[in-house]
Amino acid sequence: MTGMRRVELESRDPDLFAEVARDCAVGYLTLVTTDGRPRSIALNFAALGQDIVFHGALSGEKFALMQAAPRAGFTMVKEYSFIPSYWSAPDHACPATHFFKSVEIDGHAVVVDDPEYKARALQALMVKMQPEGRHIPIDHTLPMYRGALQKVGVFRVINEGWTGKAKFGQNEPARLRRIFVEKLRERGAPIDLLTAGEIEKSLVDAAPTD
Amino acid sequence: MTGMRRVELESRDPDLFAEVARDCAVGYLTLVTTDGRPRSIALNFAALGQDIVFHGALSGEKFALMQAAPRAGFTMVKEYSFIPSYWSAPDHACPATHFFKSVEIDGHAVVVDDPEYKARALQALMVKMQPEGRHIPIDHTLPMYRGALQKVGVFRVINEGWTGKAKFGQNEPARLRRIFVEKLRERGAPIDLLTAGEIEKSLVDAAPTD
Repeated sequence: MTGMRRVELESRDPDLFAEVARDCAVGYLTLVTTDGRPRSIALNFAALGQDIVFHGALSGEKFALMQAAPRAGFTMVKEYSFIPSYWSAPDHACPATHFFKSVEIDGHAVVVDDPEYKARALQALMVKMQPEGRHIPIDHTLPMYRGALQKVGVFRVINEGWTGKAKFGQNEPARLRRIFVEKLRERGAPIDLLTAGEIEKSLVDAAPTD
Repeated sequence: MTGMRRVELESRDPDLFAEVARDCAVGYLTLVTTDGRPRSIALNFAALGQDIVFHGALSGEKFALMQAAPRAGFTMVKEYSFIPSYWSAPDHACPATHFFKSVEIDGHAVVVDDPEYKARALQALMVKMQPEGRHIPIDHTLPMYRGALQKVGVFRVINEGWTGKAKFGQNEPARLRRIFVEKLRERGAPIDLLTAGEIEKSLVDAAPTD
């Protein structure tokens, strides 16, 4: 993974967005501090539509920055398998690579005041992180949640544009990608089996002799 | 994880730095584009001392930004277990939380020109990602690597200050943390067993009746 520059890996598929947002427990909020320092803040989040919501304190540096509705980025990466160099080349280190899916959002961050939206954002976070339930759903009309909803900060990154990427060796010959599939199945970790499945999706259009 | 604001979680322990840098396959380079947009770029990296090194293209937006030796951040997070709300409270969603270790670096990014340092950075990346070896070590004096070393961009984030965090329920009563340890062992995924071990480290100073 070298910064995901390649155009051939880019995607605007809303299913990719939804999948990466669902499967990444942690995403990276990106802000610029008042003195010009770029900061990336890791946090648990949920997607509401194509916006990103998360919670935090109603005080401190992040809150102060957010109140000005600054430009904000949000990056999330779903990591797949590392592909060792020796699956491609006997001696040379260069072919080593790492497969992934990612989404990078460009937008603005805002502080949410509406109690109904705050509750909806926090409930979306619970559904994502604790899908088994076993709590009373967060609802702004319930007295048990009223105090907590007032005290907690809820923030939203308004999505003004995003780029998805999916890297599974698309720039490699189909013949080599078939070797990766075989080696991944042999190595057999759960993530390797998922990665093999993703590579196979990219092979459906390849001729058998490629 | 709500943005890691709490002072009681902060750490300057160099072992924490080394551990997080070793165990995170992906870290997040943070830059500000020329038009003021904060960007977080996911990439594979290695630590050389307390600086961060990675590779990429010698062209494109990231390279153009790097040539000006901009302020840069670098964030890496090692995720541990999610702690469901119902381990703390029967009905209320709020106690749900996620444990982690993280490092956030503040510094400047530079383009590396020295072929010896480039080779050292790329070899450190190989040792991290492919510890089993099975390639000829990257060395700037070897003809087989000379062309590749010229063509690849190697970048370095010069670490001018960093903050580590480790969140394992330190703000919770010891009694509740003991319940987390028990429930994590019961759930028993590999990450749960690691998380239980980390919580126990935080319990060594607690009185048995806490």
